[in-house]
Amino acid sequence: MLILGLDPGSIRTGYGLIESGGGRLRALAYGVIAPPRDTPFLERLPHVAAQLEDLLRKSRPDAAAAEDIFLARNTRVALKLGHVRGAALLPVLSAGIPVHEYAARLVKKTVTGFGGAEKEQVRRMVCLLLGLRDAIPVLDVSDALAVAICHAHAGPGLERSRAARA
Amino acid sequence: MLILGLDPGSIRTGYGLIESGGGRLRALAYGVIAPPRDTPFLERLPHVAAQLEDLLRKSRPDAAAAEDIFLARNTRVALKLGHVRGAALLPVLSAGIPVHEYAARLVKKTVTGFGGAEKEQVRRMVCLLLGLRDAIPVLDVSDALAVAICHAHAGPGLERSRAARA
Repeated sequence: MLILGLDPGSIRTGYGLIESGGGRLRALAYGVIAPPRDTPFLERLPHVAAQLEDLLRKSRPDAAAAEDIFLARNTRVALKLGHVRGAALLPVLSAGIPVHEYAARLVKKTVTGFGGAEKEQVRRMVCLLLGLRDAIPVLDVSDALAVAICHAHAGPGLERSRAARA
Repeated sequence: MLILGLDPGSIRTGYGLIESGGGRLRALAYGVIAPPRDTPFLERLPHVAAQLEDLLRKSRPDAAAAEDIFLARNTRVALKLGHVRGAALLPVLSAGIPVHEYAARLVKKTVTGFGGAEKEQVRRMVCLLLGLRDAIPVLDVSDALAVAICHAHAGPGLERSRAARA
């Protein structure tokens, strides 16, 4: 099963595509979508969406996963983040790919064993779990891969592989 | 010049397409996009976007206009509104149609002469200005038409028509 993890942010959107099967996880593609710094805010939205549409044309994930966001520093930040998250999830949803949301604590717990882990710990464990030898320097990318891993473990993927093994 | 006004909301998104030219305004299409009440939140986004894409296929606005939002009741509401606004504006932005944002007070002042006008006053004036004989019962629609009218008056449309008359 192919799982696309997304970590949308106002400045950068991290993504990570993993393959989960036979009890193994493999990273197929990962990176960051970052419109040029001086891009006006609204123009950033089609930039992010177009890059994700491009990714979806090249591979067809069975599911997508993102952290469930319900808090932000203030309403202005929340509005901006909401715009970007809506624009990032829209191509996925429009393609009929189900989007699963996981609480940040569950993602961290699944990947590191500790719900209060720092982003850097998450990054190191993501590299270890995917055999990437510390190759991901950007936290937005490790966060995106982490939520994909969380779905592989906590989501229906595991249920199915459990059923297959039973 | 064709102007699409949008009023995205978590429950309903109002839209209104007007033609502005020769000092006259005419409503070409207006309505409300409202996914079924029990539609899960994220599934509402592709519903709204698909309806707007359909509208854009039928008519090609020169510009779009929406109220500039920077306040919300709380961050949770702001996040939701941001998602819907991002999903509603994305098809417009992806089609290369410029989106202009106007402060709510300016929209109200342009349409009614008073920046603190009630939504019902805005609705009545929108009907009057577009010759709709009180035909718009839904405030989301009159708000969408109002911001389109605001762009016709305050935006480059007026600048051009002024230049043409000079």
